Amino acid sequence: MAQATLTVKLGAIAANWRALDRMSAPRVETAAVVKANAYGTGIRRTAARLAEEGARKFFIATADEGAELRQALGDGPEIYVFGGHMRGDATAITDLDLIPLLNSPQQFRRQKEAAPTARFGVQLDTGMNRLGLEPADWAVLRDEVTASNPALVMSHLACADEPDHAMNAQQLATFEDMTQGLQAPRSLSATGGILLGYEYHFDLTRPGIGLYAGAPFDDGTPAIDLEVPVVQVRDLDVGETVGYGNTWTAQRPTRIATLSIGYADGLPRASGAGGLLAFADGQACPVVGRVSMDLVTVDVTALTEAPESMSIICDDQPVDDIAEAAGTIGYEIFTSLGRRYQRRYPAA
Amino acid sequence: MAQATLTVKLGAIAANWRALDRMSAPRVETAAVVKANAYGTGIRRTAARLAEEGARKFFIATADEGAELRQALGDGPEIYVFGGHMRGDATAITDLDLIPLLNSPQQFRRQKEAAPTARFGVQLDTGMNRLGLEPADWAVLRDEVTASNPALVMSHLACADEPDHAMNAQQLATFEDMTQGLQAPRSLSATGGILLGYEYHFDLTRPGIGLYAGAPFDDGTPAIDLEVPVVQVRDLDVGETVGYGNTWTAQRPTRIATLSIGYADGLPRASGAGGLLAFADGQACPVVGRVSMDLVTVDVTALTEAPESMSIICDDQPVDDIAEAAGTIGYEIFTSLGRRYQRRYPAA
Repeated sequence: MAQATLTVKLGAIAANWRALDRMSAPRVETAAVVKANAYGTGIRRTAARLAEEGARKFFIATADEGAELRQALGDGPEIYVFGGHMRGDATAITDLDLIPLLNSPQQFRRQKEAAPTARFGVQLDTGMNRLGLEPADWAVLRDEVTASNPALVMSHLACADEPDHAMNAQQLATFEDMTQGLQAPRSLSATGGILLGYEYHFDLTRPGIGLYAGAPFDDGTPAIDLEVPVVQVRDLDVGETVGYGNTWTAQRPTRIATLSIGYADGLPRASGAGGLLAFADGQACPVVGRVSMDLVTVDVTALTEAPESMSIICDDQPVDDIAEAAGTIGYEIFTSLGRRYQRRYPAA
Repeated sequence: MAQATLTVKLGAIAANWRALDRMSAPRVETAAVVKANAYGTGIRRTAARLAEEGARKFFIATADEGAELRQALGDGPEIYVFGGHMRGDATAITDLDLIPLLNSPQQFRRQKEAAPTARFGVQLDTGMNRLGLEPADWAVLRDEVTASNPALVMSHLACADEPDHAMNAQQLATFEDMTQGLQAPRSLSATGGILLGYEYHFDLTRPGIGLYAGAPFDDGTPAIDLEVPVVQVRDLDVGETVGYGNTWTAQRPTRIATLSIGYADGLPRASGAGGLLAFADGQACPVVGRVSMDLVTVDVTALTEAPESMSIICDDQPVDDIAEAAGTIGYEIFTSLGRRYQRRYPAA
């Protein structure tokens, strides 16, 4: 099999959820963000495991993601939709018992018309200017919304990954100002906000990246490994080149292993020039030449034996290291995890 | 629905295949490369349409991709596997009638042992040092391989996208040298090699990116459109910021539209800082702030009406423009096309 194996450690994800739950202020509920296929880990298994651990509220990006999640969770756990109520979503919202986080007066009216008895929450914009009701719209709607008993009132921080950014305190003040006196449960923080401290937690936190041990949750337990089969190994003479564009030339006799993974599997093409490594029994070997669509080439000269497979994501090279090699953030690496991987969920 | 709609124009893909077929030397057969889910377009529909157009040979990266393709094609068309015969592939090769392109002496022995009566081809390394038999191994195996009547003998060019690169002529000479006197059909060129001219075509060409009108096939007909719903629109005062990290600040009163697409859908995070546009009725609007996981924000101040949806991939901004904004190549954009899109195949 040329398929790479993505091992998802559900026990680690559950432990990360538990750890983030412990970091939250007393009496704060901890939800779980499982959008984008649970950050590439597979929404069915990951969500089911988190529910088993005690999570009772889940967040996804769009109603379209709701069907698979509801199937995994069964009736009971609450599913919130960040994108709110889009045109055509009413059936999904009603049938799957989704809770849209209404972002605009239009979405509020749509909910009232198309799903008048369904539960809903409200997303407020506190300065990120991406999703949520503007303060002026909120001022107009607040009484009507409150009368309808919203399940949640939330906002989202733009700079939580930078604890010293002045924006954090500014959004906190705006959120407190906009929600003062409300009976509804309130939520402001994802993983970054949890790390900012109790005053950011309100009634509910919504960890996403932290469940998968991505930065900024540096104390998490790594949740995924990626093991890739070696297609073949060859020996190069000095002066021979490797890969597209002849970008790499052997300066000494070199042994090259070709691995069955490429950018079509979500390993960014840019990572090849950024110091990406592959590991055999813990020994680091540099990726050389360009990452191509289905393959990468690795200098394995230092190994005494030709490996049958190599690790690309492992404790020695967690997702955030790959992100750094590619000039991006761990979130993008997680959510690009490939469709050609075999996903394994070992018991733990 | 917050789902973006990816429209795949099968008629354009068929026309591109036909155009590339016409560019090939007389009596050269034109195959189709449909690995990585047919470059994100959806392997079932795309492969079936190409077979209808007359393609009889298809190429994929790994045997794991064979099941879906064989189902789409039915019996008859040949399916070649670039990755060759990996450990554990024998059942798939036999049951699905796949033709592995054997890359090493190990793979050749594996085929002889595990699928002795199955058809196979051979991939030769002519200097890219990524996949294929080395000249020394080929010298040893050539007679035995020839006696087993290989279905194809092929190699792959490392620098075909750069017509003036000396590597092209060098690989051509090596391939001719290694295959002289063979009875088996020979193949050297993918899209780039087709454009290099008749001497590179041998018996079979293997266009991939060109079918989807990606560079270097600049005369192709664009094959995909991506239309993205607008979640909400808001008006900003001077000095307000947008998105993660507050990277964009309004210099004038600005109207911002939030679109339901992000890097989890394969729109690279890096494209946001690279001049990415979104279009409403052909009018270009700049993406501003960071591309986030599920959303992008667009300055739509110039529009007279708030749009319900906007185009991200269209004739005004083909895939190669998005690649340029992200600092990568069109191949990576195609093969990252998201799993949350609704794929439509209008009759044409």
